[in-house]
Amino acid sequence: MNSNSIRAEILSTGDEVLWGDIDDTNSSWLSRKLWESGVDVVRISCVGDRLEDIAGIMREISGRSDIVLVTGGLGPTSDDLSAEAAALASDDIIVLNQPAISSMKSYFSKRNWNLSDDNIKQAMLPSRAGVMENLHGTAPGFYTELGRTVFFFMPGVPKEMKPMYKNGVLPIIKERFLTNQTNQSKHFITRFKLFGLPESKVSGRLKGFNQEFPDLKLGFRASLPLIEVKFSGREKDSSTNGSLGEDNPFIGGELSIKNQMSDMNDQMSNAAKWVSSHLEEYIFSYTGLNMEQELGRVLALKGKTVAVAESCTGGLIGSMLTDVAGSSDYFLMSAVTYSNEAKIKILGVNRDTIIQYGAVHEETVKQMAQGVMRVAGSDYGVATSGIAGPGGGTDEKPVGTVCIGIAGTGIDGQPFVKAYRYLFTYGDRAMNKKIFAVKAMDLLRREISGSLLMLHH
Amino acid sequence: MNSNSIRAEILSTGDEVLWGDIDDTNSSWLSRKLWESGVDVVRISCVGDRLEDIAGIMREISGRSDIVLVTGGLGPTSDDLSAEAAALASDDIIVLNQPAISSMKSYFSKRNWNLSDDNIKQAMLPSRAGVMENLHGTAPGFYTELGRTVFFFMPGVPKEMKPMYKNGVLPIIKERFLTNQTNQSKHFITRFKLFGLPESKVSGRLKGFNQEFPDLKLGFRASLPLIEVKFSGREKDSSTNGSLGEDNPFIGGELSIKNQMSDMNDQMSNAAKWVSSHLEEYIFSYTGLNMEQELGRVLALKGKTVAVAESCTGGLIGSMLTDVAGSSDYFLMSAVTYSNEAKIKILGVNRDTIIQYGAVHEETVKQMAQGVMRVAGSDYGVATSGIAGPGGGTDEKPVGTVCIGIAGTGIDGQPFVKAYRYLFTYGDRAMNKKIFAVKAMDLLRREISGSLLMLHH
Repeated sequence: MNSNSIRAEILSTGDEVLWGDIDDTNSSWLSRKLWESGVDVVRISCVGDRLEDIAGIMREISGRSDIVLVTGGLGPTSDDLSAEAAALASDDIIVLNQPAISSMKSYFSKRNWNLSDDNIKQAMLPSRAGVMENLHGTAPGFYTELGRTVFFFMPGVPKEMKPMYKNGVLPIIKERFLTNQTNQSKHFITRFKLFGLPESKVSGRLKGFNQEFPDLKLGFRASLPLIEVKFSGREKDSSTNGSLGEDNPFIGGELSIKNQMSDMNDQMSNAAKWVSSHLEEYIFSYTGLNMEQELGRVLALKGKTVAVAESCTGGLIGSMLTDVAGSSDYFLMSAVTYSNEAKIKILGVNRDTIIQYGAVHEETVKQMAQGVMRVAGSDYGVATSGIAGPGGGTDEKPVGTVCIGIAGTGIDGQPFVKAYRYLFTYGDRAMNKKIFAVKAMDLLRREISGSLLMLHH
Repeated sequence: MNSNSIRAEILSTGDEVLWGDIDDTNSSWLSRKLWESGVDVVRISCVGDRLEDIAGIMREISGRSDIVLVTGGLGPTSDDLSAEAAALASDDIIVLNQPAISSMKSYFSKRNWNLSDDNIKQAMLPSRAGVMENLHGTAPGFYTELGRTVFFFMPGVPKEMKPMYKNGVLPIIKERFLTNQTNQSKHFITRFKLFGLPESKVSGRLKGFNQEFPDLKLGFRASLPLIEVKFSGREKDSSTNGSLGEDNPFIGGELSIKNQMSDMNDQMSNAAKWVSSHLEEYIFSYTGLNMEQELGRVLALKGKTVAVAESCTGGLIGSMLTDVAGSSDYFLMSAVTYSNEAKIKILGVNRDTIIQYGAVHEETVKQMAQGVMRVAGSDYGVATSGIAGPGGGTDEKPVGTVCIGIAGTGIDGQPFVKAYRYLFTYGDRAMNKKIFAVKAMDLLRREISGSLLMLHH
């Protein structure tokens, strides 16, 4: 059996998913994990907490797929119907599963908890089911067969489901379905992070990717205002490796896999060049870092410190920077001077400057950046002042306007201060704050890494 | 036809969803919207960009459901196969749809864009399809019938899909499937926001809800550390109203609906009391507000201002408070004093206090809260200092420890300063920051609204 012929499906159960009360993030996670193991998912489904609905879709799927990952329905309440449905669909009966009850007893005794009748229900499984231990919760998982199909039942709680997939499900899938694959089976993933180009333009620029690299898979994942471009590939199963094997019967399985792998390495490297050349300076990380991680990396690398003066961003820059563990090495402080008085009092901004130009102005953010750098004794100062909306906009300074100041010492040893003004027109208040914050961090990042200079030549 | 017999499904198409590159948030949104209109979704499915897969699942669904909302596959590329698949499944042909091309031409001319061949492909629709205008993108939507089933095809981009659902899909569903429902058809939703009780305990406390209120639907939606408890109901279709109609044949349709609605009002009000009594003081908003909104509301109501001194939260409190439009009325500043020097210099914290007790200590946060209140001239000061992790923990002050200071003027007109220490053991760095921030805001909220006093009696 080779992996290309394996059909996998994902089934999530539960009214809270079906009725949209929670987003089904389990299914996308499982689909990515299966793909990384060389198994393609052909369908994802979701049904509610009704016995006949769950048993019915199990019967449907058993006619068409080999592997089904089911999440949800293992809890102690009457709404948790997975075991019963699995028994109904496979003409089995429900019995107290001894390994399951032992595993639960050990989980409970470690915590000095008592096993309740509700919990014992969780060990009532189809008589032909195998058990998968749950290291992070009370409900054991199980797997059972229906026709040619193996159904794996896992909890719906992500922090219980994910380790059970890795430790319980995946080893069984590998043993039963992927034995003919090489142990060196490898997948390749590259992630670039972008800022400053809308999603539609990113996909527009990469339009030719699939024709250029038909064996690779291109994906986008927006956590706006950032966009991740991800391309990935995996070597094909040796037994189905057409081109090399057919052309040269003397090339055996192992060698052909090695050739494939170096071929895949080449393809990934060519794809990286191709994507880079199409997205140019919008890429700020070639390793999938976020902006605050990349800026932190650059600051730590150069041994420099930063302080921030925030008005419209309200503390978001400080909060993002301090999301990175170890940021105390380079982040000294943020002065969130929302009121004009605070700008004057804490940062030493000239009252006349604010009166003459207003708080949202290049001159004001220059003084804010210099002020916070002086107060904190940092190498760099960054300042934001803008209009996040929905109110506060004027004809001259509409909602989405931001002024950003950057102060520091240049590569020539001379102090400098710069100011920029932008207008971002597509966000609401929260998104504007994010865009302003990321833009400010990006400007400092470019300043430090000297890429601003490069871009201007 | 009554709404209870209408079966609806949702189908999302696209490899990016199937392979887990993006989460399918469209389906949960659509499911909620259908439910609000009185239509229950019985299944959600997802297939990839393969013609036969899409046409195949269309044929399957047409045998079992009345309404299907399809998203994705309307773009201009060769991967966009919805129209072709719809034609294949329903033995139809693809033709240039005149209303679609007119609508696209008007969309393009408004923007001074030229219609490309790729765009014209988007107006090639099944000959029997009806068109739905896309006000926010280039791809028109369409609907077509297969057996008893109406399929609605919408774009996968949420900002194009959502208005098309409201303006294009819902009116057709109402006209064709919901005409027998009263125009006063109403759904009832109540949302409570909670902080401080783990999700499992929340559901544990509400375990008896379904038995107590069998006609209502209970849901949880965690945006940790907050949990939303939502319960909702809708009056049943008059023609299927069992209890009232059967008991008293003299009660006609209209009256019975009125009775139902007041009955539903009563049920919702009883449920609110029941849920309140089971969750007690963990509920901080009875109207679904977030903590920063609720604190902002209370501050604005009392005409008071606040300033924040943040260490471990790194600016998150300021950022959350300023996420609320109009927050400049009550939020003056946040001093993100990450370094000890900044605490001393900006906030006037006593150097000896830090040397003697450390930065994470009740005495230090008291001085920080008083200091920022003094610097900002605010009515209240809030301060945080803690260990968000992953590093920095000690036996005495493990990761998850936070000290929170609250300073202000009491109801007796006397200045006060209080300090609290907590240990939160279940979060990573980012989650710890959130918990610390929300806890600090909650303490101030309770202080202002006097509920701390109430709780202690």
